[in-house]
Amino acid sequence: MTSNSIRQKEIAEKTGYSINTVSLALKGSPRISEETRLKIMECARQLNYIPNVVARSLVQKKTNTIGIILTELMNPILTETAQEIEQLLKQAGYNMMLMITNFSPEQEAEALDVLVSRQVDGIMMYPLVRANFSKIRAMHDQRFPIVLLAGGEYDSPSDAVYMNRQAGAYKAVSHFIQDGHRRIGFIRGAMNDEEKQNGYTSALQDNGIDFDPGLVSIIQGDGYKAGYASVQSLYEKGKATAVLCSKDHIALGAMRWCREQGIRVPEDIAFIGFDDIAASSFADVPLTSVQYDVKSVTKKATELLLKRIEEKEHKVGAPLQKIAIDPKLIIRQS
Amino acid sequence: MTSNSIRQKEIAEKTGYSINTVSLALKGSPRISEETRLKIMECARQLNYIPNVVARSLVQKKTNTIGIILTELMNPILTETAQEIEQLLKQAGYNMMLMITNFSPEQEAEALDVLVSRQVDGIMMYPLVRANFSKIRAMHDQRFPIVLLAGGEYDSPSDAVYMNRQAGAYKAVSHFIQDGHRRIGFIRGAMNDEEKQNGYTSALQDNGIDFDPGLVSIIQGDGYKAGYASVQSLYEKGKATAVLCSKDHIALGAMRWCREQGIRVPEDIAFIGFDDIAASSFADVPLTSVQYDVKSVTKKATELLLKRIEEKEHKVGAPLQKIAIDPKLIIRQS
Repeated sequence: MTSNSIRQKEIAEKTGYSINTVSLALKGSPRISEETRLKIMECARQLNYIPNVVARSLVQKKTNTIGIILTELMNPILTETAQEIEQLLKQAGYNMMLMITNFSPEQEAEALDVLVSRQVDGIMMYPLVRANFSKIRAMHDQRFPIVLLAGGEYDSPSDAVYMNRQAGAYKAVSHFIQDGHRRIGFIRGAMNDEEKQNGYTSALQDNGIDFDPGLVSIIQGDGYKAGYASVQSLYEKGKATAVLCSKDHIALGAMRWCREQGIRVPEDIAFIGFDDIAASSFADVPLTSVQYDVKSVTKKATELLLKRIEEKEHKVGAPLQKIAIDPKLIIRQS
Repeated sequence: MTSNSIRQKEIAEKTGYSINTVSLALKGSPRISEETRLKIMECARQLNYIPNVVARSLVQKKTNTIGIILTELMNPILTETAQEIEQLLKQAGYNMMLMITNFSPEQEAEALDVLVSRQVDGIMMYPLVRANFSKIRAMHDQRFPIVLLAGGEYDSPSDAVYMNRQAGAYKAVSHFIQDGHRRIGFIRGAMNDEEKQNGYTSALQDNGIDFDPGLVSIIQGDGYKAGYASVQSLYEKGKATAVLCSKDHIALGAMRWCREQGIRVPEDIAFIGFDDIAASSFADVPLTSVQYDVKSVTKKATELLLKRIEEKEHKVGAPLQKIAIDPKLIIRQS
């Protein structure tokens, strides 16, 4: 007798149903009423027997559930990422379970543990730079399917599909320079934006423009309000005629400040943002933006993860893969 | 020998580690290296032995994980709801696992099953109206802790904490009437907005204004674009001088159309939206809005769920509870 059938006998004894009924209920058979099934499941839960979806997976060695780990949900790009992945997975017959880390390395490590312990078949994550790379590398080395949605610029610990943010910033600054700008500022959010600054500085350098630290403003807090509050010094003291912002919300806030001051965009000062969120195309002066191509990233990442899961089932090996997606500059009036 | 220790012996045999090492690894002991722990966990996974977080919960009969089910993530109110709940749960020592239903009754039912089978300690959900109420009622009757974040206006199948949307619409329309409006339109999103329409019609009725079906426009699709496209007929054919919109995004889109046509807000036509999202306070003409008080809803719902979990542990009973939160009208210039 297997330990599963011992447990089923226990559940039958406790609930007063027959072993046959218990077995059918745990398999999710439509022959069992919802009420009976829930009673049996609750008993199974108390006995730490795992019913239904997992019971099926005990046979398949699969749960058809994928874990997603994101840093936050207030960023519209990440919200859209979650939404797209959910739909792609649903089409492929998988459920998505989402956890968020609030930019905390400890929460990120815990989310990985929780999802592995809940026996997800694989994980897609938007990682904190380097925070848990050794843990992720160890998981990858153990052939746990895990695809990163950023961080491919670094020594990536696992498969990664990512927007090349450095190339995006380079493209934006080059666009400013072609338009004749030489005093180009950069408003940088504190989180995860070092590649954007790398792209900014290398575009200046390649065009013979000296880097001026007075033209870089590193901000904290909410994008819109921080953009609103930080542009004045770049415009007045830094004499910037163009400003790259590491998020669209920052640029939208900065442009609002300009409008209130009677400073014309783009005549007096031009702006480019990052991510091309919906609000950017609807702004008073529609915002030029480096597009974050959510659809491409999520599609390629999901395909890669499902391929890894399949390879694992068939015990086929394959080297770590990095897929960089080159961003487009969406040129509007700003 | 319990079935757990039989499994640990099996894992020890398969991996070549001692039973003691296996046991420590599965408990998440820091004495075991990450690499060893991952090898043991992977083996445990293959043997369908559930490690670590769940192993701990086998003792506690708790997983300290709460499931959250939302209809979508593109609605900023739901995004904020998820973010707030995550932080409240984290403070209370719980992890959050989020699933989304895309407004599909089948996906909603499946999300409930998946989360129960993953042994979450409780669920908070933003339910589809009536879709799975009998299932939710059966779960509630089985004393599975489940708190709804909407739907308390109906014959609620479980505990519910919700914004009183009907009262919100009533308040908004009364505000229009106090300002002298008699031709009041309503642009209604297709989903879940029947309570708002009830509030709209009863405010008209209580003020002796006849209901004119030509002043109600039920829209599909994206809020901003749909608002932009639907306001013309209310303004031109319906002669509306004020319009209640069931989402702020709808009002913002409608106001953009007015601005492009040279129609003044609020002089020619006034607007009130729902939810008081961040973009509403930043709009050209800051939008008056019925506030969705995410912080109150999430705080009360989380408290109620944790109380239910505790009551269940102590086998204490309590009647079903409904907590309605009365919305404020945030009056701005629109």
